[in-house]
Amino acid sequence: MRSGLSVFGAAAFCLWWCGSLALAAEPAPAAVPYVVTEPASPADFALVGEQTATKMLVDRQDHKGLLRAVATLQQDIRKVTGRQLPMLHSVVAGTEQGLALIVGSLDQSALLADLVQRGKLDVSAIKGRWEAFQISLVEAPLPGIRQALVIAGSDKRGAIFGVYDLAEQMGVSPWVWWADVPVKTSKMLYIKAGTFKVDAPKVKYRGIFLNDEYPALTSWVMQKYGGYNHQFYQQVFELLLRLKANFLWPAMWNNAFADDDPQNAIVADEMGIVMSNSHHEPMMRADKEWNRYGKGPWEYSKNREAIYQFWQHGAARHKNLESIFTLGMRGQEDEPMSEGENIGLLEKIVADQRQILAETFKNRDVSTVPQVWALYKEVQGFYERGMRVPEDVTLLWSDDNFGHLRRLPTLDERNRSGGAGVYYHFDYVGGPRSYTWINSTPIAKIWQQMELAWRYQADRIWIVNVGDLKPMEYPIDFFLRMAWNPTQFTAGNLEQYARDFATQQFGPEHSTEIAWLLEGYSRHNGRRRPEAMTAQSYPLLANQEAARVSTELADLAARSSTLLAKLPKNQQDAFIQLVDHPVQATQALFELYHAEARNQLLASQGRRETNAAAADVKRWFDRDAALTARYHAIGSTSDKTGRWDQLMAQPHIGLRYWRNPEANTMPVLLTNQPIEAADMGVAAEGSSASWPQSDDLGHSLTLPRFDRLGMQQRVIDIFNRGSQPFQFEAKVVDASSGKNKAGWLQISASQAEVKTSYPLKVSIDWSKTQPGLNQAEVWVKGTGYGWAKIKVTALDSPAARAPAIQPALAARQNAPFADADGYIAVNASSAQVQGNSTERYWQQVAGLGRFLLDEQAGSMVAVTPADQLVDTSPAAIKQAPHLLFPLYFQQAGEFNLQLYLSPALQITPGRGVRLAVALDDAEPQLLDLMANYDDKVWQQSVLDNIRILGHRLQVASPGLHQLRVYLVDPAVVLQKITIDTGGLQPGYVGPVQSRRLHPQENQ
Amino acid sequence: MRSGLSVFGAAAFCLWWCGSLALAAEPAPAAVPYVVTEPASPADFALVGEQTATKMLVDRQDHKGLLRAVATLQQDIRKVTGRQLPMLHSVVAGTEQGLALIVGSLDQSALLADLVQRGKLDVSAIKGRWEAFQISLVEAPLPGIRQALVIAGSDKRGAIFGVYDLAEQMGVSPWVWWADVPVKTSKMLYIKAGTFKVDAPKVKYRGIFLNDEYPALTSWVMQKYGGYNHQFYQQVFELLLRLKANFLWPAMWNNAFADDDPQNAIVADEMGIVMSNSHHEPMMRADKEWNRYGKGPWEYSKNREAIYQFWQHGAARHKNLESIFTLGMRGQEDEPMSEGENIGLLEKIVADQRQILAETFKNRDVSTVPQVWALYKEVQGFYERGMRVPEDVTLLWSDDNFGHLRRLPTLDERNRSGGAGVYYHFDYVGGPRSYTWINSTPIAKIWQQMELAWRYQADRIWIVNVGDLKPMEYPIDFFLRMAWNPTQFTAGNLEQYARDFATQQFGPEHSTEIAWLLEGYSRHNGRRRPEAMTAQSYPLLANQEAARVSTELADLAARSSTLLAKLPKNQQDAFIQLVDHPVQATQALFELYHAEARNQLLASQGRRETNAAAADVKRWFDRDAALTARYHAIGSTSDKTGRWDQLMAQPHIGLRYWRNPEANTMPVLLTNQPIEAADMGVAAEGSSASWPQSDDLGHSLTLPRFDRLGMQQRVIDIFNRGSQPFQFEAKVVDASSGKNKAGWLQISASQAEVKTSYPLKVSIDWSKTQPGLNQAEVWVKGTGYGWAKIKVTALDSPAARAPAIQPALAARQNAPFADADGYIAVNASSAQVQGNSTERYWQQVAGLGRFLLDEQAGSMVAVTPADQLVDTSPAAIKQAPHLLFPLYFQQAGEFNLQLYLSPALQITPGRGVRLAVALDDAEPQLLDLMANYDDKVWQQSVLDNIRILGHRLQVASPGLHQLRVYLVDPAVVLQKITIDTGGLQPGYVGPVQSRRLHPQENQ
Repeated sequence: MRSGLSVFGAAAFCLWWCGSLALAAEPAPAAVPYVVTEPASPADFALVGEQTATKMLVDRQDHKGLLRAVATLQQDIRKVTGRQLPMLHSVVAGTEQGLALIVGSLDQSALLADLVQRGKLDVSAIKGRWEAFQISLVEAPLPGIRQALVIAGSDKRGAIFGVYDLAEQMGVSPWVWWADVPVKTSKMLYIKAGTFKVDAPKVKYRGIFLNDEYPALTSWVMQKYGGYNHQFYQQVFELLLRLKANFLWPAMWNNAFADDDPQNAIVADEMGIVMSNSHHEPMMRADKEWNRYGKGPWEYSKNREAIYQFWQHGAARHKNLESIFTLGMRGQEDEPMSEGENIGLLEKIVADQRQILAETFKNRDVSTVPQVWALYKEVQGFYERGMRVPEDVTLLWSDDNFGHLRRLPTLDERNRSGGAGVYYHFDYVGGPRSYTWINSTPIAKIWQQMELAWRYQADRIWIVNVGDLKPMEYPIDFFLRMAWNPTQFTAGNLEQYARDFATQQFGPEHSTEIAWLLEGYSRHNGRRRPEAMTAQSYPLLANQEAARVSTELADLAARSSTLLAKLPKNQQDAFIQLVDHPVQATQALFELYHAEARNQLLASQGRRETNAAAADVKRWFDRDAALTARYHAIGSTSDKTGRWDQLMAQPHIGLRYWRNPEANTMPVLLTNQPIEAADMGVAAEGSSASWPQSDDLGHSLTLPRFDRLGMQQRVIDIFNRGSQPFQFEAKVVDASSGKNKAGWLQISASQAEVKTSYPLKVSIDWSKTQPGLNQAEVWVKGTGYGWAKIKVTALDSPAARAPAIQPALAARQNAPFADADGYIAVNASSAQVQGNSTERYWQQVAGLGRFLLDEQAGSMVAVTPADQLVDTSPAAIKQAPHLLFPLYFQQAGEFNLQLYLSPALQITPGRGVRLAVALDDAEPQLLDLMANYDDKVWQQSVLDNIRILGHRLQVASPGLHQLRVYLVDPAVVLQKITIDTGGLQPGYVGPVQSRRLHPQENQ
Repeated sequence: MRSGLSVFGAAAFCLWWCGSLALAAEPAPAAVPYVVTEPASPADFALVGEQTATKMLVDRQDHKGLLRAVATLQQDIRKVTGRQLPMLHSVVAGTEQGLALIVGSLDQSALLADLVQRGKLDVSAIKGRWEAFQISLVEAPLPGIRQALVIAGSDKRGAIFGVYDLAEQMGVSPWVWWADVPVKTSKMLYIKAGTFKVDAPKVKYRGIFLNDEYPALTSWVMQKYGGYNHQFYQQVFELLLRLKANFLWPAMWNNAFADDDPQNAIVADEMGIVMSNSHHEPMMRADKEWNRYGKGPWEYSKNREAIYQFWQHGAARHKNLESIFTLGMRGQEDEPMSEGENIGLLEKIVADQRQILAETFKNRDVSTVPQVWALYKEVQGFYERGMRVPEDVTLLWSDDNFGHLRRLPTLDERNRSGGAGVYYHFDYVGGPRSYTWINSTPIAKIWQQMELAWRYQADRIWIVNVGDLKPMEYPIDFFLRMAWNPTQFTAGNLEQYARDFATQQFGPEHSTEIAWLLEGYSRHNGRRRPEAMTAQSYPLLANQEAARVSTELADLAARSSTLLAKLPKNQQDAFIQLVDHPVQATQALFELYHAEARNQLLASQGRRETNAAAADVKRWFDRDAALTARYHAIGSTSDKTGRWDQLMAQPHIGLRYWRNPEANTMPVLLTNQPIEAADMGVAAEGSSASWPQSDDLGHSLTLPRFDRLGMQQRVIDIFNRGSQPFQFEAKVVDASSGKNKAGWLQISASQAEVKTSYPLKVSIDWSKTQPGLNQAEVWVKGTGYGWAKIKVTALDSPAARAPAIQPALAARQNAPFADADGYIAVNASSAQVQGNSTERYWQQVAGLGRFLLDEQAGSMVAVTPADQLVDTSPAAIKQAPHLLFPLYFQQAGEFNLQLYLSPALQITPGRGVRLAVALDDAEPQLLDLMANYDDKVWQQSVLDNIRILGHRLQVASPGLHQLRVYLVDPAVVLQKITIDTGGLQPGYVGPVQSRRLHPQENQ
């Protein structure tokens, strides 16, 4: 539970974000703990003491939803302590009741009103506020009551959130039901003396959207509840309330909330959940209701009367239920209207909808009826082209379905009374690729985007599409907690949140490790979503990326398995759901495609290992199925199916386009039959080309260029396609003289036998090279006609010789990044930040960006005040905050600089998404993410989670240079830079960061 | 045997070349039969009579080689009749010897000289001629001899060829030993009364080159003979002599003829075989001898002395052996010289070689020593750039290694005393692709090329590279017989040759069928050599080519199997070697790649049939191995290996570049696992694209355009990727109105269940179409999101309506070829030939070109006198012989005309390889095969056996038009034309010939 967190100092928290990063440890977002399991002082309040039991006191006339919450609390206390506190609705005068827990809302509780009136309770901190609560200790509040813990809500939900705040503090996770997190039991529960907690949300409506709920959630719901009825929904409502959320878009894939079970809407209202329908379902009527009851086409231009009546029914049905009415109209099944982008028609529709609301809420100013206009997909275009709705209607901006906000309110829009909100996605069905399986959104990304929303005052509604709900526990928890109070979350304490979450679910002991696992799998899936994975995603050869990712995931999987075995039995189910399943399933999916890629490469080279790789594909495919089966069997006994049976039923292997396949689809497996002879093939490190086909295609086999600062050994792979061994002979041939020798080039063997393959190592004797480019060939002869010839070059740059470097180098912390192996690569978080001001600055966000975990790297985010205009004159830009990259070039030349940026959209109309770069004293050059931007670029960017901008760098001389990246527009996220000096291999995450050049290392 | 042929009339010969072709049945090339097995008249000469036996009489002092041949004839007669004729070397005066067979050479036989002197024998027909022989009956030639059959040779080989002419006539095939062709037995052998046959060769040196003999021939030779010794070679020599050939380039891959066994050269000379070494082995020394004895590098510029001595030894060794000395020099292992193209050096080399010859042949004019300069590969370049050798040296022109002559003698060159020859290939190891397995050169191609050589007087040497010899029996037989007398072979009697060959080996009964089988497999391999085959060679989809080829080969294979079972046991071994093995192996290889292509297509569409196709690949791979094993086991018994063990050991499956693999390489097999659900895919006929991926890629599924004259039904393939069945629903949607109907478009079902696949048939109701282009879509919905939409268009051209056509049509035989399904395709042999003269004409050559067998098509070859210059003014061209193609277009427009031409090279320097085309009255446009010609074009052309020239046709109006293709340069071979009017599918053999438009067919 959260109170346990205090035993960890700041230093101990520094897990994955630290290392090369130097983030200040900021205060944790966790609430101040006020519940303890043993009294620290005699003045502490015994909610459940060694012998004593406090009475629960609540006004019978208080909100029904609050009474429900209090009853739930009573059960929570019983689960924690084993003791059920008596529930009273009044105090019998003259009896001695001892201690009491008093709960009430300011608007409904006579009990509370009495305390306030009698001066026993000061509620000025919450009175009149939205959903505020106050938890305090009151001496002798009532006759016969010695002391009371009072939970007071400014309103119904304020009181309910107070109740669940206590429950959480006691050791009941919000995920107690939805993730089988065991209650942390304790014989006693004490409230610290002096406890006085006041809290209230900063975002008004905070909720989730159950969506794309077929097959996983729907199959489970049908099995467990027989349908999307109120028995099911009240579990969802309770989860939301425990997470202090208040808003829901219900399942709509093939469901209609208010129609499927008339109790659904009634129970929601009673429990305190504000309902709406999803962005494209106007007037509180589900899309599917039109299928059931609508007459004629869903086309307003042709069928106004029927649709008008249809909406009237929705308004009437929800007149007395707390709701937000969605205005506007889209086509059925979340498609654009069939009438096209007809602004006049849509304005008429909204006017009619307002009319219906005015008729329905006769005695009320219609502007007080909560309404929202979702500017989703093409609807945003209507708005941008001038369509407006009344200013009391909340404008709901959306992300691009892939977690990147498309637009945020301008200064003018922020003054609208209806305010603005954000519709975000953790799950999406659509192009270019659906993602509906397991969590693939790192919290750092959520934070970076939602912090932007907060900064731009899009704070009226935060709603997030969570798909089937279940695999998204971790990001839901983060999103809703951040919605409660965005200011509590900073770039510096995201790590603390992960540990807090781990601690709440599993206790403090393994929280470091669990936070690492959560972060690890979600960071991996955040680099590229599982559904967008193919065999080609992480290259096998360039930068050895696939192998590095494989190692990373193997480590995560092994650590998760170890921890699972170590955990107490009653935590294992929850651990599987929240941690181990996504970790293992992430690895299985990656390794499936990794094996497919090996299968393809090996088959293309005709290698003997091809079939083993095919078997690996099948093994990981089966592993995935076994993991799903394990999840589905959680809690199963001989007489019942698993607790979460079917909840992982979403097919996720083998997407060929936006849609998930009908079932997991095994990749096509390639098998070969080693030929009944010896048959030599030769490949050079880093390339899939192999001899002898290379000869036929006119391709040369070439090793990456050697230089003094880079890799000092490369491998020529001599392999066998046949089933018989062979002998090879190798020699070095000078390319210019044709002589059978080049003294500077060394090979590890001049002959050997090859059964499967033989790694011939190639290295350079720098004492024998000539300045400049040295060229030679390694010739290999085994079976087949003639020699395989592999080109080897070694760049002996005077600039790379030790004596020349020393004077050029600055202090160690500013040591330049070395041009080696034909490139320079530097993570943005390795740059020196210069010129930051309070208002405009580069902010380091750990865990954000497409890095490998072992890089311990983060991105740099450009922060400016909303709406601040920028002077883009070169002189002004030079004054801007900038990232300084000290670089050391081996050669002069014109080189390609690439800036790896997170996908970002034009959140402010009429403004680019820009930064500026300059080498040394050159004039800064503006680069704009919006230049040459189109749908195809967008599609690629959300599949790849990257935008790469190129720029030609003129490097006039070898040696030290300084590259500066200047801040221009907000929300630009720089992940890394690369410079191709002749050997950069295109990859996915790209090459590892170049090493810094320290004088002492180069002698 | 050949004499049996006379029972067939000309009409019965019309097998595969006739049909649409109207070739005159020309006289057969077979020799006039003079041997019969029963006396037709009492005057016939009884070589072996019922009771009598003729004596064989030969001068003991005659050539040893002739004595060998006569002894062989004695054994042949015994094999045929069971009786061994007594051999005498003189007649004992006064004894009655009855009948005699007298054999002798004019230059060595005293016996013959005596007959001539005594006026018994008139040899004026052969005297002084090269290799001439005369077979005649002589009354009372000698005392005691009543009558004699006299075989007289003008020289040693003339007599030998006479001997083998008789053997062949008796029923001993030249292939008696090399292909196990059984001797045709007969109790009696009679020579027709009045027999008088004189014959002599027209090409002076006629031979073969054993090359690339590893692994097949070498493995067999090592097993049977222990090495390339004279026991082996005398079998080769005898084969050559039986085929009346006289010349050999011996095996040189890792062998040295004169050095491996000192008897080799001696036995060759004795038997009458003129030896040389291959084109790059000068001065009668094998390349490999340098490895054994040479000192220093094989570089004349650096090591003249050693190489000079090396060559001196060769000249001395062969001084007294009949030889042709190869001059010049190339690098070792058939590579260019390491010194590069140094003309001065090569001239010095030739001068030195002449010097050696002059020193060796001291008493002889060196110009009488046969010498040859092979203008092979880069050496031709030396010549073209001005290098010359003495005029007595024969210039040996070469093909391009793929059967296309590169150059032929000019008028000046034809006057050189050394004359010219040709080096041709049936087998080649090198780029772009080796071909070394089974025969892949159709005799029609050999004829067309060698007839050109003959026409250009390249008649001094004809030598052909035959690889391992063994699988090339059929083309060797043809090549050497044609070399003996090129004038006996015409475009019109090639078919007769095939039947003659079949009859000689297997008797007349099945000769029609066997000729069809020989022609069938070699025509298929001639379209594309087996080694150049890949899964993509014959498209699966375009024009259904792969299926059509598959049907053709299945028919051949079945007929061959049937015939094999029907043949007498003693003919079966020969039938397997000559016919059944190449037929079955050709099919297996094709079907292997065909199955691989299906495997790839099905896998790409995720179809359930994928694995069955993979199993097919494996089955055909195993079939190929089983066929090889059967061949290797021929004649094997429990105590010995097969007669031809290892002779089919050449790996031939899985070439990835020029070189054969080390062993047959199974293609990579693709397997998939049908998903555990139903999953619809949809494909349109003729395209590999399938829904739903097509949606993602932004590709439309489109059926080929319908028109009134083309295919009236197309298929939409609705298939299942999963293991569960599904229902689909289909409808027609009008593309313009969006209405759910287009009356003119009909589909065969509106719903059905799909287990594996369902062919939805699409057709057109032409009574409901509008003139012009009609457009609609077929929509199909099954599993998955949304509808699969297939575009359908129907071109209702007024020109294609029956009433409009009738008046435009000419007589039936001139009926135009209809533009239908978006193309016109016409085989060249379907054109009307106009304007032919005796000297310049288009000549139809059946069996030549890349056709399917069932097309019964041939090519048209441009023939002109050698060196005749051509007036290329439009007016002159209009007078030239031309091919007239009557065409009927549905639409006006600019369309692409493609002319399919056989690869042809510039046989005459400074002249193009041109033809001209004109539509209607337009000015003829010259097209030149040499335009934009480079090595890449050449490589592609020899892999594809085609050159395609394009030309834009302006068709001003729909209806009838006439395309003319004019003869310009010789040796141009037109196979077919295609015109793309909007729907031509790129294929390999291309679409089937368009149908002719007969009025009565279109009402």
